[in-house]
Amino acid sequence: MNYSAPLSDMKFLLKNVFHADNVWPNFPYVNENLDIDIAFTILDEASKFSSDVIFPLNRNADEQGVTFSFGNVKTPDGFTECYQSFSEAGWGGLCGNPDFEGTGMPKMLGVLVDEMNYSASNAFTLYSSLTAGAALCIDSHASENLKKTYLPKLYSGEWSAAMAMTEAHAGSDLNNIRTKAVQVSDDQYKITGTKIFITAGDHDLTSNIIHLVLAKVQNDSRISLFLVPKFLEDNNFNHVSASSIEHKMGLNGSATCVMNYDESLGHLIGEQGKGLSCMFTMMNYERLAIGIQGLANSEAAYQLAVNYAKDRIQGTEPKLKLPCNIIDHGDVRRMLLTIRALTEAGRALSVYTGMQLDLAKYGGDSQQKIANFSQLLTPVTKSFFTDRGLECAVMAQQVFGGHGYIRESGIEQIVRDTRIAQIYEGTNGIQAIDFLSRKVVLDKQVVLQQFVEDINFNLANFKFVNQKKCDLVKANFQKLINFASTINHKVNPSLLNSCAVNYLDAFGYNIYGYFWLLMVEKSHQSKHHLFESKQYLCDFFFDQLMPNVGLHLNRLKSCDDSIMAMPKEIF
Amino acid sequence: MNYSAPLSDMKFLLKNVFHADNVWPNFPYVNENLDIDIAFTILDEASKFSSDVIFPLNRNADEQGVTFSFGNVKTPDGFTECYQSFSEAGWGGLCGNPDFEGTGMPKMLGVLVDEMNYSASNAFTLYSSLTAGAALCIDSHASENLKKTYLPKLYSGEWSAAMAMTEAHAGSDLNNIRTKAVQVSDDQYKITGTKIFITAGDHDLTSNIIHLVLAKVQNDSRISLFLVPKFLEDNNFNHVSASSIEHKMGLNGSATCVMNYDESLGHLIGEQGKGLSCMFTMMNYERLAIGIQGLANSEAAYQLAVNYAKDRIQGTEPKLKLPCNIIDHGDVRRMLLTIRALTEAGRALSVYTGMQLDLAKYGGDSQQKIANFSQLLTPVTKSFFTDRGLECAVMAQQVFGGHGYIRESGIEQIVRDTRIAQIYEGTNGIQAIDFLSRKVVLDKQVVLQQFVEDINFNLANFKFVNQKKCDLVKANFQKLINFASTINHKVNPSLLNSCAVNYLDAFGYNIYGYFWLLMVEKSHQSKHHLFESKQYLCDFFFDQLMPNVGLHLNRLKSCDDSIMAMPKEIF
Repeated sequence: MNYSAPLSDMKFLLKNVFHADNVWPNFPYVNENLDIDIAFTILDEASKFSSDVIFPLNRNADEQGVTFSFGNVKTPDGFTECYQSFSEAGWGGLCGNPDFEGTGMPKMLGVLVDEMNYSASNAFTLYSSLTAGAALCIDSHASENLKKTYLPKLYSGEWSAAMAMTEAHAGSDLNNIRTKAVQVSDDQYKITGTKIFITAGDHDLTSNIIHLVLAKVQNDSRISLFLVPKFLEDNNFNHVSASSIEHKMGLNGSATCVMNYDESLGHLIGEQGKGLSCMFTMMNYERLAIGIQGLANSEAAYQLAVNYAKDRIQGTEPKLKLPCNIIDHGDVRRMLLTIRALTEAGRALSVYTGMQLDLAKYGGDSQQKIANFSQLLTPVTKSFFTDRGLECAVMAQQVFGGHGYIRESGIEQIVRDTRIAQIYEGTNGIQAIDFLSRKVVLDKQVVLQQFVEDINFNLANFKFVNQKKCDLVKANFQKLINFASTINHKVNPSLLNSCAVNYLDAFGYNIYGYFWLLMVEKSHQSKHHLFESKQYLCDFFFDQLMPNVGLHLNRLKSCDDSIMAMPKEIF
Repeated sequence: MNYSAPLSDMKFLLKNVFHADNVWPNFPYVNENLDIDIAFTILDEASKFSSDVIFPLNRNADEQGVTFSFGNVKTPDGFTECYQSFSEAGWGGLCGNPDFEGTGMPKMLGVLVDEMNYSASNAFTLYSSLTAGAALCIDSHASENLKKTYLPKLYSGEWSAAMAMTEAHAGSDLNNIRTKAVQVSDDQYKITGTKIFITAGDHDLTSNIIHLVLAKVQNDSRISLFLVPKFLEDNNFNHVSASSIEHKMGLNGSATCVMNYDESLGHLIGEQGKGLSCMFTMMNYERLAIGIQGLANSEAAYQLAVNYAKDRIQGTEPKLKLPCNIIDHGDVRRMLLTIRALTEAGRALSVYTGMQLDLAKYGGDSQQKIANFSQLLTPVTKSFFTDRGLECAVMAQQVFGGHGYIRESGIEQIVRDTRIAQIYEGTNGIQAIDFLSRKVVLDKQVVLQQFVEDINFNLANFKFVNQKKCDLVKANFQKLINFASTINHKVNPSLLNSCAVNYLDAFGYNIYGYFWLLMVEKSHQSKHHLFESKQYLCDFFFDQLMPNVGLHLNRLKSCDDSIMAMPKEIF
């Protein structure tokens, strides 16, 4: 059992597909030393760290889990040392703001490092991912003072962070939160309340834990955001404590805490009453990160399954009638190809989305347009990567036969660990509604249309790919635009909610189709050694997985009527 | 958290859909006292037993698991007492042969009782299911002496049974088994070897455990079947021992053992060298049983999810703009309706398959034709029920949001427990190959054609259903027949294996479509109180799930080329 980062594919994407070396010199905020060779060296180092340092802890973390006694949360063996090594190697501040001691690397590189770390261990990587997301939120919305105090220590890994939103009665709908904030000085508040499902809320990895907490200021029904450290600047305990941890289906090495804030001192981040929108900076960061978690699990599952399939002898090869490895069986290939076709397209979308986030930072004419693209894609990456992530993990487990159900195989842990990614940071249903409602229909399809126009422009210039495939992608996007334009929320208020998931899935498969064509085009153009595999996988994708777009478009025709008709009593 | 058997639906199927009261009087082997009222009473009693006695043990069984120490396998708290109550109430011999003290109830009733028990606890019910399957095999192939010795005690629950086939290097392909049998007297052999993944191989529920073991007689490369008891008739230990148990993703209350047979005395069952075909009597029984496990998990998952959805307040109802239960959200309804539409159609197919098994026993003109139908349907029930079972469990878990990932919710246990059903008793890939290869193509589609003709005859006589829907079902079946007729295994030996799963899935969704029409027709015809819900669910199924048939048919067009093209080195 092992994990080995797919470095060839990652480098191909950066260099040959998205031409990072042409793009980066135009990014003033990016570390000025960065070029493609340095990027490749960073990927090589990240690959070693994920395989040699993080991955070996992952199985034990599942078996041992996080423990809770006398108010103390203890992470599995090796996590504390690993977090220290991770921090010392500088991974914590990789994409952080250089003004506050971050390394200033672009997100399109960061997503690949994230993928490796999640492939090596979902549970371990959550701790650093939440820290990076909180730092981004602080960097975007907090005062200079807070930035100076908190960002360097979050980037260095001396401190870590958590995101505290959910309460027992307020999950998908945060309007009902009850955590209270009482102002005690100019920018200080006392925060009191209980939050549930707080990942990394308490643990033994770092000397301090910085909580970003949603609460309501007294006599204000709106939601505000507060920075609440576990320990204050004078090292006094700030009454931020875990009262219990959850026992879960998986992700056992990740501390999921019930957190109590008992008149804990906090600083307002952003304007009072604008907490949700500030928190969404972190939330959107984490949504992409969780999407990458799904993708990373697909990759890790593929590696386990393909190695098993090449090794396991069972049955006879149909042509030669000789004993064969199970990879010779069509049905096993079907599963492996499905996983790989979904994972490589997902990786392309992941790097593309990272690049949009980078471009949105770079002040240029198209900055707003690009920022809109990244917002359009965030719910897609989160839900499509993670839904496919579970499917791929389950398929990979199936390749193992009975051995896949046994814990020591490692593959069943991936299934259990990845399952949560479809749920947290907003369920995938919520993502789909966000996508169709806020990002498409309320926008009158403007951003979607721009996005599709850019794609159509590229498709029209492709030289090495089948034109029929290009036309199909184009036609499907047009159908999606047309469908959205028929939605009238006032006339039919339940329509959005009932067809959102099928809408997002149709979009997801179709955009994967586009990225397959893009990868084939670029691999031929650059005569890259991956061109052969990209061509096979692209053909497989269009034959076997593009028909899913048709399925989901088909369902859209009727979903509202068939879903809303049955009276509640009959359920 | 609770389970309540879907008695209305079950009774509707027996009485109004499949007219059991007209059918049973023609079955000479069936208990002569049976009529529909007695059947309903049996269902009522089974419902109480599953909810009140079995279900309460299920959560603890997952947490506590089976333990193994000093060679002894201990089942979770309460299992031994529960098994005794189960046996005393007569459930163990429900469908057993009355000539050997079985109760002689028909399988079409038995499948419903099985469903209830699996819904209440997968782990507990496996013990009795394996016992019933082994008894069927003994009844079908063993000598009168063996039947007299073993059947009454297996039916009564005093003894239990296990099926010992798999070895470390022989799973899907049993030809490579190494367990040896040496003849010591006329019908006695000494069996030596090691078997893995033996469910209920050892435990503390019964005073003896009867193993049906596949082995090879010295100097004979063919496989034979042996009855090997843990304790001999003189109560001496027969050297049948567990050397370890597996730690699994779920099903923790079920003992999955590595079994050693050390010159253990065994009796040949059936002819020497015909072991696989004898074992298939048990195997086919268990395949249907495992299918029912998948179905039962869908039902149990639905019940948990629908109760949560009716109770959980979150978000606002789109028309009234008031806080609402999540069942008012279209996306939650989509998931609940999908589960229910799949589960109720599956239950209809389950009872239908049970009826075919009953009819195949009843000597009549169409006996062979009917037996063929049940063989055609066995791989479909096993794999389609269990694939949909995982999907439904995962969807139900999604309804719970974050709470669904927490162990105490109970829903994540269903996901873990049901996952194995896609793997054991022959992976679902193996089922699909069996279906398309042996049951359809090698048969030159004769049985499939007969089966479809019977369905078409019924469709033509339906009065209360939409004719367009009938035509769609008919047309899809014709496409499946046509596709199979183009398969030439000699010309293209990899085709079968690479398209089998899509072929079976297309068949599965289409046959569910037929059963929805049948249920609507029968509910209208009999003015049954379920007619309204059946109509809504049928409409939902045709709008939202029948398009899957098109998806899978679409994939069939290209699957061989796109799956076999890529060279092995590129994987």
